[in-house]
Amino acid sequence: MALKEKDKGKHDKIIEGAIKVFAKKGFYNAKVSEIAREANVADGTIYLYFKNKDDILISVFEEKVDMIIHRMEAELNKVDDPLDKIRTFVEHHIRLVKENKYLSEVIQIELRQSNKFMRRYLPVKFLEYLDLIGKILEDGKRRGVIRQDIIPAIAKRAIFGALDEMSLYWVLTRKPKYSLEQSIEQISTFFIDGLRVPKDTADGFSPLRSPN
Amino acid sequence: MALKEKDKGKHDKIIEGAIKVFAKKGFYNAKVSEIAREANVADGTIYLYFKNKDDILISVFEEKVDMIIHRMEAELNKVDDPLDKIRTFVEHHIRLVKENKYLSEVIQIELRQSNKFMRRYLPVKFLEYLDLIGKILEDGKRRGVIRQDIIPAIAKRAIFGALDEMSLYWVLTRKPKYSLEQSIEQISTFFIDGLRVPKDTADGFSPLRSPN
Repeated sequence: MALKEKDKGKHDKIIEGAIKVFAKKGFYNAKVSEIAREANVADGTIYLYFKNKDDILISVFEEKVDMIIHRMEAELNKVDDPLDKIRTFVEHHIRLVKENKYLSEVIQIELRQSNKFMRRYLPVKFLEYLDLIGKILEDGKRRGVIRQDIIPAIAKRAIFGALDEMSLYWVLTRKPKYSLEQSIEQISTFFIDGLRVPKDTADGFSPLRSPN
Repeated sequence: MALKEKDKGKHDKIIEGAIKVFAKKGFYNAKVSEIAREANVADGTIYLYFKNKDDILISVFEEKVDMIIHRMEAELNKVDDPLDKIRTFVEHHIRLVKENKYLSEVIQIELRQSNKFMRRYLPVKFLEYLDLIGKILEDGKRRGVIRQDIIPAIAKRAIFGALDEMSLYWVLTRKPKYSLEQSIEQISTFFIDGLRVPKDTADGFSPLRSPN
């Protein structure tokens, strides 16, 4: 259901307010009244848009991760080579985390918690995000630049996990020892070299080249 | 302070009971009385050993992760080559997760949550576990088998993160699509190839060999 312009404004204010409150207090400790205060709306208004606190959390994930997916897709579309796309993915993932610290805190810390109580809620948007990596890997295998023995369903989780742990460090550490640029460079190189077809293909790999 | 034999028994029963209750209910929803019931001790007995629920959670981490570190060190000591050690680490991390499903659920899901409210509590044991990987990487650089440009402080987090995400998938998915063996093989190969000195060292890497 499309929201009217004015309603959309309030909806978004509640989402933004919730992100701040969840990040500061944690999902369990956060009160709906605090979200209302942060969003500058009346307590009762929240219930016109959301069923309860869980519903707000789910909406934060779905709407914000959806936005992130669209931004990431736009960046990936600027690049052709699958190995370059991996670098692009790493770079923008880490930058998004740094630029959206409250949101990252909610997604990274509360998502796991909520994963649990929401076992029956399938984190569709999270799986879509993972699939962005999966598609790069499949394309890379097809084009013969990524090793044939890589299983995208496993590798995409490994790559996401590595990025997620690095991001958690960025979110939780006040004075990180390494610059963002160093981390992007390290992680991209590390992944790309683990995935690419070795330069000396005498290594037992005979990548199939796509016809184009 | 060393606990007497009988006290040690009760202490351990509470820890084991808490792991089950935290895994099933989540840390926030778990009640101390439920832990007492699961551990088969009186409610009041818990407070002879622990200050509160947070204290139980911290003890679970410290004691269990300490046990895991010792088991992992024993496995790593059986192997000499740093690249083989990485495979050993991956294999035993994934096996430990599978064999200790409740504990993994508590560490993986509740740790992040607690990381937040325990910002002032430094997760010493977690950092020690990360350092097991860090030491393998440093040793590998010294011995010229791991690339000189790898920054162990970053790479150890990337490796842990990848393993952790794979493990979360194992913990949360009822019917994983891939076998444990496939995952171990994929992740080890992926890491080792991302870290090792390329076979054709004309690649710009001139690893320093240690004198031995």
